[in-house]
Amino acid sequence: MDWVYVKNVNQYDGQEITVKGWVYNKRASGKIWFLIFRDGTGIMQCTVLKNEVAEEVFELKNTLTQESSVIVTGTVRKEDRSPGGYELTVKEINVVQIADEYPITKKEHGSNFLLSNRHLWLRSAKQNAILKIRHTVYYAICNYLNDNDFYRFDSPILTPNACEGTTTLFEVPYFDLGKAFLSQSGQLYLETGIMSLGRVYDFGPVFRAEKSKTRKHLTEFWMMDAEAAYVEHAQNMDIQEELIRYVIRTVIEKNLQELKILGRDIEQLKKADAPFKRMTHKESVDFLRSKGSEIGDKDDLGSADEAMLTEASDVPVFVEKWPKETKAFYMKRDGDNPDLVLGADLIAPEGFGEIIGGSQREDDHDILLERMEKENMSIDEYQWFLDLRKYGSVPHSGFGVGLERLIGWMSGVAHVRETIPFPRTIYRIKP
Amino acid sequence: MDWVYVKNVNQYDGQEITVKGWVYNKRASGKIWFLIFRDGTGIMQCTVLKNEVAEEVFELKNTLTQESSVIVTGTVRKEDRSPGGYELTVKEINVVQIADEYPITKKEHGSNFLLSNRHLWLRSAKQNAILKIRHTVYYAICNYLNDNDFYRFDSPILTPNACEGTTTLFEVPYFDLGKAFLSQSGQLYLETGIMSLGRVYDFGPVFRAEKSKTRKHLTEFWMMDAEAAYVEHAQNMDIQEELIRYVIRTVIEKNLQELKILGRDIEQLKKADAPFKRMTHKESVDFLRSKGSEIGDKDDLGSADEAMLTEASDVPVFVEKWPKETKAFYMKRDGDNPDLVLGADLIAPEGFGEIIGGSQREDDHDILLERMEKENMSIDEYQWFLDLRKYGSVPHSGFGVGLERLIGWMSGVAHVRETIPFPRTIYRIKP
Repeated sequence: MDWVYVKNVNQYDGQEITVKGWVYNKRASGKIWFLIFRDGTGIMQCTVLKNEVAEEVFELKNTLTQESSVIVTGTVRKEDRSPGGYELTVKEINVVQIADEYPITKKEHGSNFLLSNRHLWLRSAKQNAILKIRHTVYYAICNYLNDNDFYRFDSPILTPNACEGTTTLFEVPYFDLGKAFLSQSGQLYLETGIMSLGRVYDFGPVFRAEKSKTRKHLTEFWMMDAEAAYVEHAQNMDIQEELIRYVIRTVIEKNLQELKILGRDIEQLKKADAPFKRMTHKESVDFLRSKGSEIGDKDDLGSADEAMLTEASDVPVFVEKWPKETKAFYMKRDGDNPDLVLGADLIAPEGFGEIIGGSQREDDHDILLERMEKENMSIDEYQWFLDLRKYGSVPHSGFGVGLERLIGWMSGVAHVRETIPFPRTIYRIKP
Repeated sequence: MDWVYVKNVNQYDGQEITVKGWVYNKRASGKIWFLIFRDGTGIMQCTVLKNEVAEEVFELKNTLTQESSVIVTGTVRKEDRSPGGYELTVKEINVVQIADEYPITKKEHGSNFLLSNRHLWLRSAKQNAILKIRHTVYYAICNYLNDNDFYRFDSPILTPNACEGTTTLFEVPYFDLGKAFLSQSGQLYLETGIMSLGRVYDFGPVFRAEKSKTRKHLTEFWMMDAEAAYVEHAQNMDIQEELIRYVIRTVIEKNLQELKILGRDIEQLKKADAPFKRMTHKESVDFLRSKGSEIGDKDDLGSADEAMLTEASDVPVFVEKWPKETKAFYMKRDGDNPDLVLGADLIAPEGFGEIIGGSQREDDHDILLERMEKENMSIDEYQWFLDLRKYGSVPHSGFGVGLERLIGWMSGVAHVRETIPFPRTIYRIKP
């Protein structure tokens, strides 16, 4: 390659290099001006001295606009006061394009304006930082799973059946076969995968046609679903805990600078890399009531409950053994109390709420069939799922991680719409 | 973990271990019988000796059926004649479930039967091998890109506009906003990403509502789209070539056993890891005519053409500089000949056909606008895409790899429907 990325300039101290990117900002002061240059991998100050460059290069201080594309050649110089530790003393600037007046400036913009200009907003330092953290979180999850005997197993998006209810499904007319539905979760398909590969996961987009307008809801979001044969409830939580702690460590190791740009409380994030708390749903209800909540014995936890539950906790909290009425048909009942299921939700601290839902799955054919009939599910459509309980059924468990919510917590970004390149909500399908 | 995966038994020579999995097969001969055991990670022969186990364990030779789930404890023994190099001398067998009579047997089944039982077919040795190669290919691509300055940038599936025509788009009713369409390619979105991150890619499902019924077509398939700022046509091909050669080496390194199970000609695959051939579209047309083809000057290459073109080649062949009529509106014209575009298709040898399509992109606002108007595209809907040519436009290029076609070639599997867990075609949406 005939040019250098800013993230690698530390390898070229004292050498002449070329960088290719955009004008992030500029500052002038008499016989010297500074081009704040960005190329996506980093930001670097380039110093332009009147006595050391051609006149037309020096005069670019007047014509270069924000986001103009430029190719800059100069000498790398160590500069400890500089954010990246290095600066460039400019020899030459080649202008690729002088940008039109850029719509996004330093002033405050409304969220609707920014979302309508998402294709440009992505260039800002904070959005760039979130995208880099997203990259890290995605591969930290993959690497942990790959190193722990899981195989990737891409479940289908176009499905004939609903995993949980049908009112929140997007429909797609499908040739002469009637309707298909966009998948809400690959879980049921992953259960076929474990019978071939032992441990599997998928990691892709899923869809919920929910009319929710909270800061935690998108209609299209990314989910990692994992499933493992012969893994039971307690070990299922162990895997989740190890995975999340690994992700925390990886993000802190790789994205310290991005976390700083986002103003994340890094010490607080570090504290979450310690043994997670585990409590039963009943214990959580008792605790919440002691704090004044009016939550019922068989209620799900609301956002306010989740926040209250983790208020005094530095680490995520597992809430396990839920009343069967609160959870899906496929969860295995607790052997000690058939009114409970062997499911657990993992609640992130600092008010970020649920980031994982998981459970041991019902592996008995007749019990599963009975539950599906009770929920008026089409036995015919789900025969393949029941088959898994006829041909070598095994105890097994799994869990699903919501990528955007996890990134929200890791990066300290309150609204999940900033954690995905092009967010889709009930009101927004563009750009 | 309280048990061992078959892939790791080589670490336990002479030790007593427990494995958890399924009965793949069994063979009896007097006072000894063999349980062919599989757990997803591998297959291992377990020897059961009448004199060394309890009577009820020995008698399992009569009751264990194919695919029954079992937990086996025994001593690991090195056995060079064994396919995996190790066997287990059984001490104990715990039956989890005796499987019902398994529908898939050693006899030949029709493809419709196998596809309708895809949830079970996945367990067969060949399908298991293909899934493992898919895992390797996926991460080989990601690792190459991550090591070469690309950031993951997940483009949206629900989109307001069409990338290439609209007749092959799946429609989705979207709340009060009218219709959304399932993405056919993330390319245009990736072009926004390079302005933030320099080099980006996505890697997820894309959708084409094509009525094609060939062995190379699925309605839902996985695509990796990459895009890079300041990369021009020739360098774009260099990146593709390095990427594909890296994938070949990685698959051969990690999946030799799986390639053997599939009967892949491994020597032939190895030969493809050498400098790729490059020819212009015109050269390819001249060559094909010399072989008797009636292909026209401005024709796309059909499957037969692609096969003929690579017949005598051990390595993939780039066909570059196509007549502008054959390619999409966003490709940059060749500076030397405005009737051609700076696009290239990469054709795999051995008849597997196109595995990559790529090009340098048009970066001039006015030229791009003119082309879009000529194609009757809605300028209003694509304003965000045109914006990229107003605010710091740069030369840039990208390409898309079809995952299933690449796996097909790597693994030597002719029909792409076997290269994805649950294939979707015009006639099939289940299971």
